Amino acid sequence: MNATSLDKDILFVSMVLNAWDTYTKRVTDFLDKISDQGLLTQVAPDRNRVYYLIGHLTVVNDRMLPLLGIGDTHYGEQEAMFLTNPDNKELSGPTPEVLRQNWKDSLERLSKGFKQFSTDEWFSKHSAVSEQDFEKEPNRNKLNIIINRTNHMASHYGQLLLVKEK
Amino acid sequence: MNATSLDKDILFVSMVLNAWDTYTKRVTDFLDKISDQGLLTQVAPDRNRVYYLIGHLTVVNDRMLPLLGIGDTHYGEQEAMFLTNPDNKELSGPTPEVLRQNWKDSLERLSKGFKQFSTDEWFSKHSAVSEQDFEKEPNRNKLNIIINRTNHMASHYGQLLLVKEK
Repeated sequence: MNATSLDKDILFVSMVLNAWDTYTKRVTDFLDKISDQGLLTQVAPDRNRVYYLIGHLTVVNDRMLPLLGIGDTHYGEQEAMFLTNPDNKELSGPTPEVLRQNWKDSLERLSKGFKQFSTDEWFSKHSAVSEQDFEKEPNRNKLNIIINRTNHMASHYGQLLLVKEK
Repeated sequence: MNATSLDKDILFVSMVLNAWDTYTKRVTDFLDKISDQGLLTQVAPDRNRVYYLIGHLTVVNDRMLPLLGIGDTHYGEQEAMFLTNPDNKELSGPTPEVLRQNWKDSLERLSKGFKQFSTDEWFSKHSAVSEQDFEKEPNRNKLNIIINRTNHMASHYGQLLLVKEK
């Protein structure tokens, strides 16, 4: 590999991680500003509450740990509440304080894991694809998970932006 | 450059373009399904109308042409309406039919331009960065524009998803 193509590999990884960092920072800033009462606001009439969306994004982050091979999930018991079912105000979940902390912890764990990866590891398969399928579809690599999850986060961030606190 | 690193270069570009295609298809499918009346719905109370968001995304696509060096803008006269100013129901813009067509045309022009780029060209600077700055910040390349614009589109797509037609 010549220097130019090696540089390009490193550059590409940094471009993807920069976009991830941009959106995690935007969500974190939003969460730091909103009140506990604001968490209970729906982003639009009959749509998800902020509370649900933050829990949802946290659980999706959490599931990236085994997918990327950097750890086990920590919030498996919250998947029914925030992932497999729609928002339900009747159910009681984590307190606002715990919800906020879980979001930050989920990012911290990912960030630590990301730092361990070499460029080649970023282009290796994630755990939800078989060796055979990966040979045919080499885009199903770890870095692609970050691209897709950043877009997923951006789509919910757009919804969070609709909330106005009085 | 050996085969593996060349493959990886091609792979990056395809990963980024696949994510772009995923979200342009989602927005297009949304637009194909919504009625002309539905275009006038606000995504949340006192927030942008669907009409505005589609116009906004179209103008942002359009501005990518000069940014990527693949053409001039076609909807410069709509920038005041859809980009530099917030939604304003009093102003009259393109008809629903024209709005829908512009969206598709903006994508078509980009798609044609994307096909001309070699991998090295994707990693070359976009037109809004100087040679000097690009030397220090090589991430300010054409491919990064696609990563960022896909996230931007995803954030508005998340908002469009909140609309319910009766």
